Amino acid sequence: MQYPNGIKKKPNTVKNYSNRGMNLENALNETNDFYISNDIALIYKKPIPVTITKVDYPSRNKAKITEAYYSVPSTTDYNGIYKGKYIDFEAKVTKSTTSFPLSNIHPHQIKHLISVKNHGGISFIIVYFEKLNKIYYLDTIHLESFLNGIDRKSIPTHYFDEYGILIEERINPRINYLSVIDSVYFKGE
Amino acid sequence: MQYPNGIKKKPNTVKNYSNRGMNLENALNETNDFYISNDIALIYKKPIPVTITKVDYPSRNKAKITEAYYSVPSTTDYNGIYKGKYIDFEAKVTKSTTSFPLSNIHPHQIKHLISVKNHGGISFIIVYFEKLNKIYYLDTIHLESFLNGIDRKSIPTHYFDEYGILIEERINPRINYLSVIDSVYFKGE
Repeated sequence: MQYPNGIKKKPNTVKNYSNRGMNLENALNETNDFYISNDIALIYKKPIPVTITKVDYPSRNKAKITEAYYSVPSTTDYNGIYKGKYIDFEAKVTKSTTSFPLSNIHPHQIKHLISVKNHGGISFIIVYFEKLNKIYYLDTIHLESFLNGIDRKSIPTHYFDEYGILIEERINPRINYLSVIDSVYFKGE
Repeated sequence: MQYPNGIKKKPNTVKNYSNRGMNLENALNETNDFYISNDIALIYKKPIPVTITKVDYPSRNKAKITEAYYSVPSTTDYNGIYKGKYIDFEAKVTKSTTSFPLSNIHPHQIKHLISVKNHGGISFIIVYFEKLNKIYYLDTIHLESFLNGIDRKSIPTHYFDEYGILIEERINPRINYLSVIDSVYFKGE
């Protein structure tokens, strides 16, 4: 590309963030921070599980991890308490415009979500269809009944339209999933 | 030391594990595994929080973390669900024979335990007095009222004797803290 002053601009290696859509994790962290600071709920993202294999101690009080590996999470990413109820969920992003590939969630995470529901907790998944700019809440009840149906490798968007609940992104809290929980679990209150 | 065959025994550099006492974290992990595999409760230890600063990709599928640091946990180590109730606790070991130093718990962890209680969850600390070989359950109600009292830097053992509940170590589950919760929260059931 030719610029007025004759300087050739280098190809832009920096990603264009304006078209990248929302960062789901950041948006959920901000949402949870809002809930916590307003004493509405106590829901946190769990730390990323890593297996630490080497640690250096360059100074007495500072440990430096020099070798570690990502490990498979044993549960879901988010849990906590809301209105006295145990809350547990997993949040995923997909680039697909037609379906949510189930390979995005570990089978033991799905098993965990079902166990939570069976123990009387509230569990669900949040799926962000990046290219459709749509965020869905899907309760484990409907996730489980989908999995009990015909063997499929992905959940089509029409299933989310039928059984999921759309969450509109707002200013604050950004992804107000607790309003969905209110409408599903605390309707009479 | 002189041995019968004249060989001088080298000083033993291997720790004597028989006097080391129980490893609280392992014992609690085994306990939680027992609860999970018997579908009694879903309580997990959260991963250790680390801040990852450098990652190498020696092969396409294997990420190797080459620089990371331990970060301050934002909540407690253990949480989950039991009989539909949200459970949250912190477990600590002390070598002291007279009191539990409060410097062992981050102030925001104490604040978190109190918040959980206020939100209708069950929260508590488990303190293992290694040299006394005693494991206590102390409910957040009593932790909070201790903190509201005279300014102290540690909780004396007699406070645990009066307001805490002793947990006997058993074969399986090793530290049956849910039986304590039954006696405190589900007495009528």
